[in-house]
Amino acid sequence: MRDAGLWSERYAQVRAATMALAEPLSDEDCGAQSMPDASPVKWHLAHTTWFFETFILERYETGFQPFHPAFRVLFNSYYNGVGDKHPRPQRGLLTRPSMAEVRAYRANVDARVTALAARHAATDARLAALLTLGLQHEQQHQELILTDVKHLLAQNPMAPAYLPPGAAAAAAPAKAMPGWQRFEGGVHNIGHAGDSFCFDNELPRHKVYLAPYDMSTRLVTNAEYLAFIEAGGYRDPSLWLAEGWDWIRTQGIEAPMYWRHDGVWTCFTLHGQQALEMDAPVTHISLFEADAYAHWSGARLPTEAEWEHAARDAALTDMFGHCWQWTSSSYAPYPGFRPAEGAIGEYNGKFMVNQYVLRGSSIATPTGHARASYRNFFPAGARWQFTGIRLAR
Amino acid sequence: MRDAGLWSERYAQVRAATMALAEPLSDEDCGAQSMPDASPVKWHLAHTTWFFETFILERYETGFQPFHPAFRVLFNSYYNGVGDKHPRPQRGLLTRPSMAEVRAYRANVDARVTALAARHAATDARLAALLTLGLQHEQQHQELILTDVKHLLAQNPMAPAYLPPGAAAAAAPAKAMPGWQRFEGGVHNIGHAGDSFCFDNELPRHKVYLAPYDMSTRLVTNAEYLAFIEAGGYRDPSLWLAEGWDWIRTQGIEAPMYWRHDGVWTCFTLHGQQALEMDAPVTHISLFEADAYAHWSGARLPTEAEWEHAARDAALTDMFGHCWQWTSSSYAPYPGFRPAEGAIGEYNGKFMVNQYVLRGSSIATPTGHARASYRNFFPAGARWQFTGIRLAR
Amino acid sequence: MRDAGLWSERYAQVRAATMALAEPLSDEDCGAQSMPDASPVKWHLAHTTWFFETFILERYETGFQPFHPAFRVLFNSYYNGVGDKHPRPQRGLLTRPSMAEVRAYRANVDARVTALAARHAATDARLAALLTLGLQHEQQHQELILTDVKHLLAQNPMAPAYLPPGAAAAAAPAKAMPGWQRFEGGVHNIGHAGDSFCFDNELPRHKVYLAPYDMSTRLVTNAEYLAFIEAGGYRDPSLWLAEGWDWIRTQGIEAPMYWRHDGVWTCFTLHGQQALEMDAPVTHISLFEADAYAHWSGARLPTEAEWEHAARDAALTDMFGHCWQWTSSSYAPYPGFRPAEGAIGEYNGKFMVNQYVLRGSSIATPTGHARASYRNFFPAGARWQFTGIRLAR
Amino acid sequence: MRDAGLWSERYAQVRAATMALAEPLSDEDCGAQSMPDASPVKWHLAHTTWFFETFILERYETGFQPFHPAFRVLFNSYYNGVGDKHPRPQRGLLTRPSMAEVRAYRANVDARVTALAARHAATDARLAALLTLGLQHEQQHQELILTDVKHLLAQNPMAPAYLPPGAAAAAAPAKAMPGWQRFEGGVHNIGHAGDSFCFDNELPRHKVYLAPYDMSTRLVTNAEYLAFIEAGGYRDPSLWLAEGWDWIRTQGIEAPMYWRHDGVWTCFTLHGQQALEMDAPVTHISLFEADAYAHWSGARLPTEAEWEHAARDAALTDMFGHCWQWTSSSYAPYPGFRPAEGAIGEYNGKFMVNQYVLRGSSIATPTGHARASYRNFFPAGARWQFTGIRLAR
Repeated sequence: MRDAGLWSERYAQVRAATMALAEPLSDEDCGAQSMPDASPVKWHLAHTTWFFETFILERYETGFQPFHPAFRVLFNSYYNGVGDKHPRPQRGLLTRPSMAEVRAYRANVDARVTALAARHAATDARLAALLTLGLQHEQQHQELILTDVKHLLAQNPMAPAYLPPGAAAAAAPAKAMPGWQRFEGGVHNIGHAGDSFCFDNELPRHKVYLAPYDMSTRLVTNAEYLAFIEAGGYRDPSLWLAEGWDWIRTQGIEAPMYWRHDGVWTCFTLHGQQALEMDAPVTHISLFEADAYAHWSGARLPTEAEWEHAARDAALTDMFGHCWQWTSSSYAPYPGFRPAEGAIGEYNGKFMVNQYVLRGSSIATPTGHARASYRNFFPAGARWQFTGIRLAR
Repeated sequence: MRDAGLWSERYAQVRAATMALAEPLSDEDCGAQSMPDASPVKWHLAHTTWFFETFILERYETGFQPFHPAFRVLFNSYYNGVGDKHPRPQRGLLTRPSMAEVRAYRANVDARVTALAARHAATDARLAALLTLGLQHEQQHQELILTDVKHLLAQNPMAPAYLPPGAAAAAAPAKAMPGWQRFEGGVHNIGHAGDSFCFDNELPRHKVYLAPYDMSTRLVTNAEYLAFIEAGGYRDPSLWLAEGWDWIRTQGIEAPMYWRHDGVWTCFTLHGQQALEMDAPVTHISLFEADAYAHWSGARLPTEAEWEHAARDAALTDMFGHCWQWTSSSYAPYPGFRPAEGAIGEYNGKFMVNQYVLRGSSIATPTGHARASYRNFFPAGARWQFTGIRLAR
Repeated sequence: MRDAGLWSERYAQVRAATMALAEPLSDEDCGAQSMPDASPVKWHLAHTTWFFETFILERYETGFQPFHPAFRVLFNSYYNGVGDKHPRPQRGLLTRPSMAEVRAYRANVDARVTALAARHAATDARLAALLTLGLQHEQQHQELILTDVKHLLAQNPMAPAYLPPGAAAAAAPAKAMPGWQRFEGGVHNIGHAGDSFCFDNELPRHKVYLAPYDMSTRLVTNAEYLAFIEAGGYRDPSLWLAEGWDWIRTQGIEAPMYWRHDGVWTCFTLHGQQALEMDAPVTHISLFEADAYAHWSGARLPTEAEWEHAARDAALTDMFGHCWQWTSSSYAPYPGFRPAEGAIGEYNGKFMVNQYVLRGSSIATPTGHARASYRNFFPAGARWQFTGIRLAR
Repeated sequence: MRDAGLWSERYAQVRAATMALAEPLSDEDCGAQSMPDASPVKWHLAHTTWFFETFILERYETGFQPFHPAFRVLFNSYYNGVGDKHPRPQRGLLTRPSMAEVRAYRANVDARVTALAARHAATDARLAALLTLGLQHEQQHQELILTDVKHLLAQNPMAPAYLPPGAAAAAAPAKAMPGWQRFEGGVHNIGHAGDSFCFDNELPRHKVYLAPYDMSTRLVTNAEYLAFIEAGGYRDPSLWLAEGWDWIRTQGIEAPMYWRHDGVWTCFTLHGQQALEMDAPVTHISLFEADAYAHWSGARLPTEAEWEHAARDAALTDMFGHCWQWTSSSYAPYPGFRPAEGAIGEYNGKFMVNQYVLRGSSIATPTGHARASYRNFFPAGARWQFTGIRLAR
């Protein structure tokens, strides 16, 4: 973007979208943390602001003064290069700063970033890249705000709704019969191409050899997953990875997260407790469950390279916007991967162990955020994201 | 109290005192739970209301309807006789009901209890006893609100103050030289006497035989406790109970809770981080630490019977209003102890194992709440209460 | 004992009795540790020898040289005054020294102690006292060898027997109808009297005031305890201490340790898996279970003072030799208690917190070891000792 | 092998090699389990026998009777398809069966398998395949016996040696200067080729695309790794995967397993505590440490495909026989992977999550067991195997 006006418009739009997500919530809702993996909404609001303050204002602003010295530690997520950080499991104990102070923090940083962008973003490519990264980062936290709020509200026995039940719960579910689309083998290019934004983990673009394979034309539905449950899928160890079997037994897991069975199956949604929509894609499952389902159905999960290669084929529906799709690929650097210099290099690379790649995007992903080369990643047991299944064979 | 007007005045005064404690706090402050042992202020406000609703309105009100059916579970602390209860470690996740709803809950129950008391309390002794118990229970939670808020704010690296630093931190500290007051042995009566209110665990009054003993005329001060630290008290296993030694080593404990050493000693108080007042009584220590200090100083902790027998002697200062004083007595039923019938009988009796008795009262105890026969109790490792030391020998 | 010959006879007899307990066991049996609370038999054999080496030979032997320098640490149980100690949960990993080496260690120390005793025990009262303490200590470990072996063999799905099944399983069980024996109240003397041996925790003899009370004339039987189970005792929270209720729920406890129900009730014994003897005293229960049973039966557990005062009354049967009887008394120092100087003072005193006193003795206690003033102690959840119930009211 | 005589010779040789490993050990040594990941030697001896009994005798022997019915459960490692299994962390509590009984078990099964092989192995290809698998399985446990014994003896403060210190500790260490060998990119074939034995996880042979890369001509030495330590490698978070950094901090890890620093560096070996051999390959490190070292040295770990493609190049030394070499590849099925039908299919496939592939072989691997396509695998934090580093870039 060469035009400073576009910068400020884009910046304002993304930052406002974050605040809009907090709109239906009380200050109390915004402060609580339901588990160490999740963060309070207030923390997300402050951390995304800290990101702009730390990686842009501190570098570019003449006579930089932090909004509040303590925030450098309080809202540092995991950047050792920036210094100390508040312990993650204790984010919900930060009743101060208040929501009002965090709003003021956002407003202050917004004004300063906007001023900076107006003066320099059109001419300083490095600044422009950091601004873009900050906004993409903000969008990632927009998705986390929704998944974390959902998890928090689900802990409340009163099952409060984030949005009014009247609203349409989700995009139209997949109704078509599942089919298989064939893809030829050979050497293909994988990774981000072109000069539009991508994260460092999508680079470099590189060659992979793929054997011929089939991809399912649609996502696995709740009805199909329910058939797996009713066929005893959670009681048959031969379907499960050994660690997955231990995990479901130790945790007492018998269905996707948020499903409940009281005579009928319901599930907790952002609109409250609702009847299970049978034609909707199954979500909130772990890699272990996705793998067991695939095994049971006689198929397998795709690799991330297969998914990406197939992504632009028109025969495949719902690749984006419904749920992140587990792949069998562990999260690893692409050949020749180079993280950025300095603390910003901690963004992605240091998490490349014991995590699995998910592809696509979900109903919680901001429009325009994802793309075919996008690599989301979570541990094999994570379920609080909108995660689902597309089969391969 | 025979006069219904006095009932409503007393009730209103105690209930208002609870709300006044929440005055300096935001809704966010009131929602957070810093550890499983502590509860959010909002939960205290609701639970004390639940107590009146459950044990008075539900029994006495014609056509009783609960304010909200879910509250029966959400705000039940530990009464199995009432039914299910929300898991204690998850009280901080109850962002709903909101503080506003809890205020409305209090107002609603207050109106109904007041109406009931006006009609019947003067003539129905059982109702009067339950009202009294409810108010005594409320006062116990007033103290817990202060200890729990202090613990929560102490987790925040910004060390926010509950009260303005200008306010006088505490009652005048003990400046006198310590001395010993002699008490004769023999058979003495212990336990509550008379027909004023007491908890069931203070009864029945009964005989105990005491050997002659000395009690210190004042509490151990911060200066004295600091001398113990500086003499290596936390590094000498011969001073400690075996379980206490394991506990300080495993937890990395080297000083009372809330003490910090950065060149000088400071401690976190309800007024924020402050210089350590050397003449003030040491507080926020465990039984393990109290016992080790006593051992080091060549003395011992008193038994609860010794403390109670000595309590009315004018030579002893600061028996009440500064800190709860650990005794060497495990919390056990008095001979002939009988808890009340039904769920209310769970109030005290079921905790009589692996806890130790504290006597006196603290700066956080409401005026008029404690008495010589009062038995407070906590596990040997508890430190977040205002706990201190009076020596015996 | 003034006669050196008697010393060596007594010493040889006690030491041989320990070795006899290991007779039915393989070296493999002797090396394993089934839980941190229990120790391998080999460790017991070595530790009791370490006790004589450390507290007698090291002090009295001219030119003392340790049998093996490493043993000072390996076989130190908990004496901080002696120096470092091997971590308790890792005692089962000490495959070296071998059983053969430990036998040699015993033989070596036995010869040296015997020589020392022959020369000095008749004239050196302090040495005589240490010899006596060492032998009493050895007898305590004789009981632990049996309880620890029983626990180890019970972990084996093949349920191997320590002793041949043909042998009489236990002394004749209590068949009489239970009755109550009345004891008058008043000031009584408690604690060891006379100049025969006792442990330091039995002193000083002191006065206590007892209200009048009744003691059951016999122990609670398996049949009676089974009635408690069948009446739903393990499912009714109103019978349990709060911590006990949490404990049985968390641990999934529904019956005494070693009981198994497969259509019929059996229990694991030192003679292998056997039918439950209905008239035998119930054993292997925690204080929590003893207390819940007492509550259910309308009675209570005695205090240790009540038990001791009653102990010599002929109406009470089975006070000794069947099972240790839980009391409601937490383990605390008697008024004026003084542990010995130096490391030996760690024998008892430092455990006086969060433990409960048991009185009597069990089928595993060596003959002549216990007495009316003897104070055994374990945490409220301990079950692997031969622990049972005598009721009071 | 078409010749029954060769079968019995091969079988006898492999089985005897296992017993020879137990030769320097006492029965006590053979019974202990130092951690859940490791098993007692006795258990290894019995489990490998169970493997032949379950997967060969039970299928092929007419009128099959198990040696002991309980062994089916006791010595089942992880085959859910066979039935229940004894809990892994409790293998060290199985003092029965004794070592003598396990020897008898081995002898009994050996005789029966040998008889069966003599009659049918030359003509029954499926039996021959199972026999081969059983022997390969036995060899894997030969390596585990050494690593598990080493871990056990290392827990003993006396640091006992498995082998006499006089024996040569290891094969000649790598003394050459490290260099880089270049490999061209392109599509290469990976996986086992030919009809000699391989495990199912080495199949099917398949194409991969590799970018050009360099492999180090030798392994990283202790001296090189020590330079990393002395340069502060364990204190610089920028070198570590985030999970690795948490792991070293939580576990207090500052050097490879078995290294000790008391003025000089020594390490525990199968020959006891020895001076650190500076030119020997570093071993007993986790993937986290291997990755951090690679990062620090400006290189990276190879992928498993790179390693396998390079394996036959003569420029690379010490590919086999010194230490298993961590790769950056997570353990995953090859395209088209099919485990065997039935319980034997649990051998490899179900572990393909959260584990990383190691290539090569170690000083503990039986001669002839490994090959270029061999895939060993362990979790990223495992250190008790002989694991080391070969760099790539």
